[in-house]
Amino acid sequence: MSAPPPATGPSPFRPPGPPSLVGTVHARRSGAVPGLRYRPAVPPDPVKVAEVDRRLEAWARDLELFPEEWYGDFAGFQFGRAVVLQHPGALDLDRLTVAGELLLAENIVDDCYCEDRGGSPRGLGGRLVLAQSALDPFHATPELEELWRSGTRADGPLRSYHSALEDYAGFATPSQVARFVHDAARLHLGYLGEAAWAEVRYVPRVWEYLVMRQFNNFRPCLSLVDAVDGYELPEALYARPEIQRVTALACNATTLVNDLYSFTKELANDPDHLNLPQVIAANEHCGLKSAYLKAVDIHNEIMDAFEEESAALSATSPLVARYLTGLAAWVSGNHEWHATNSHRYHLPNYW
Amino acid sequence: MSAPPPATGPSPFRPPGPPSLVGTVHARRSGAVPGLRYRPAVPPDPVKVAEVDRRLEAWARDLELFPEEWYGDFAGFQFGRAVVLQHPGALDLDRLTVAGELLLAENIVDDCYCEDRGGSPRGLGGRLVLAQSALDPFHATPELEELWRSGTRADGPLRSYHSALEDYAGFATPSQVARFVHDAARLHLGYLGEAAWAEVRYVPRVWEYLVMRQFNNFRPCLSLVDAVDGYELPEALYARPEIQRVTALACNATTLVNDLYSFTKELANDPDHLNLPQVIAANEHCGLKSAYLKAVDIHNEIMDAFEEESAALSATSPLVARYLTGLAAWVSGNHEWHATNSHRYHLPNYW
Repeated sequence: MSAPPPATGPSPFRPPGPPSLVGTVHARRSGAVPGLRYRPAVPPDPVKVAEVDRRLEAWARDLELFPEEWYGDFAGFQFGRAVVLQHPGALDLDRLTVAGELLLAENIVDDCYCEDRGGSPRGLGGRLVLAQSALDPFHATPELEELWRSGTRADGPLRSYHSALEDYAGFATPSQVARFVHDAARLHLGYLGEAAWAEVRYVPRVWEYLVMRQFNNFRPCLSLVDAVDGYELPEALYARPEIQRVTALACNATTLVNDLYSFTKELANDPDHLNLPQVIAANEHCGLKSAYLKAVDIHNEIMDAFEEESAALSATSPLVARYLTGLAAWVSGNHEWHATNSHRYHLPNYW
Repeated sequence: MSAPPPATGPSPFRPPGPPSLVGTVHARRSGAVPGLRYRPAVPPDPVKVAEVDRRLEAWARDLELFPEEWYGDFAGFQFGRAVVLQHPGALDLDRLTVAGELLLAENIVDDCYCEDRGGSPRGLGGRLVLAQSALDPFHATPELEELWRSGTRADGPLRSYHSALEDYAGFATPSQVARFVHDAARLHLGYLGEAAWAEVRYVPRVWEYLVMRQFNNFRPCLSLVDAVDGYELPEALYARPEIQRVTALACNATTLVNDLYSFTKELANDPDHLNLPQVIAANEHCGLKSAYLKAVDIHNEIMDAFEEESAALSATSPLVARYLTGLAAWVSGNHEWHATNSHRYHLPNYW
């Protein structure tokens, strides 16, 4: 099995290096991107945050998800603070913790398989199809299934996916679990699109980049807001085109927030890393500052479309309204997490 | 956009070259694999077959899906005969035709993006994430969405996916459409797993190969049996783990039938092409004949598990029974199509 090499080097939770001075970009320590449309988040309860972090670290240690030396950086990522900010309506700490397990597992797979901790674009498709099978089980003969189970248990990222989904299935309906599995398949396709372009050094058009980013996207974290809040948006409603559209708009807006807040760090760590401002600059032959401001405008237009279409759809059903309120809360919490996580993000000093 | 090069060379519908004499393999023109467990198919109505082929060719010409010189080979693939064999309970010719459109679109994407008509493992992830977006629409600003629509219209494989799904959504419920979109994402992940292993020349273990093959699988063609037959297996039932399992068993059994009937052709066209007998031979250091017979045994065990578990589940609900009968009919029809399509398949002459 093309398993990733043993995790060595910096942990995924290590803060980035010194603020970058690449090109015209100077870093600010934190704060919101000027001109970015966002809603204030519900302030996180520090007691909940600490308890979720405690449970997540215990879960990771129990599954031996990463080497001892990584735990020192574990707090830096602020997983607990992330999920408490993103799910203000969470029914209980158990559900919040499982949202954190899924978030942590997605980060481990991304970091160990795709990014700089042993990942490489070459052969990634083989690793990710096995990763998807940790969520979407293999069915064959008992002997072959046992070999698959052993292979899944033998690999940290696969263990994390399998265990997190098992815990999720403890309270989510089969439809909600299937929704997550589909969104993980979307995510893995997005990783593979991005990796393929990096491998062949293809610079996508702006729309192509954004299509890829609709797949390599926070969607798996948002589409479980109903399960974490303790109810179900019935699948027959969830599958409707207008609900799919407004879900994608929320997911795309909040994913672009990540592009904007990660820009300086990505420029410092890997100047070729695809990122909306970079792709705009390359396609429109403009400077990074002008491209960054255009990226902010694209985010804002998508955010406005999400809010307008949400308002119209919320009037059609209380369940839909509750679901869309949950998506909006996730978007607000995710913005707050990015804007205040100076441990991880730095803003370009354009203002 | 990393579109495939203009379709040149042989069409996807061209019969394979002369029977291969590679290694110990001698080709028989057709007939069932001795020892393979299968059920007889419902004989196809030739009038329906001809009408579905006529409509499919008109659809393909209307969308300009491929160059004129390919149409000569079009009949060779027997798309109409395939779907009439696979869907004996189809409600009407319209639904049969759409099943054929989806099958044809999957073949065009596979052939033009993945196989030898311009496809290459390098950069495939970028092409397939755009292909998935032809089924799973992009949502952003009106201007960016229009650029995506133009890009989709400009590429034959993307046009075929988009149009076939549009026609499917004409009678399928949003849940049934979402089911197809998820199965297409699974298929594309499977293509990418196979391509990655080919690129790095990784020979997977048998269980790893079969996991990949559960993704690179006929599943998108089977999981629409209820829609083609004119009813819906409600998603809450479809999503249940035991229904997911029995669905995967049927899909895996019928996909391995393809490995067994394609073996000689693949060996002749590309000796390195991954295929269950080849993977068994490489892992178990045995000859191809012995590996082929082991592959038949694995198929038979999976087929038996499908039939036993189907019988138990069918007793629980008439709708589940109807769905599982549809899956079994698809499996039988697909076997008949492979066993009699001597235009495309040749058996190794082991018997």
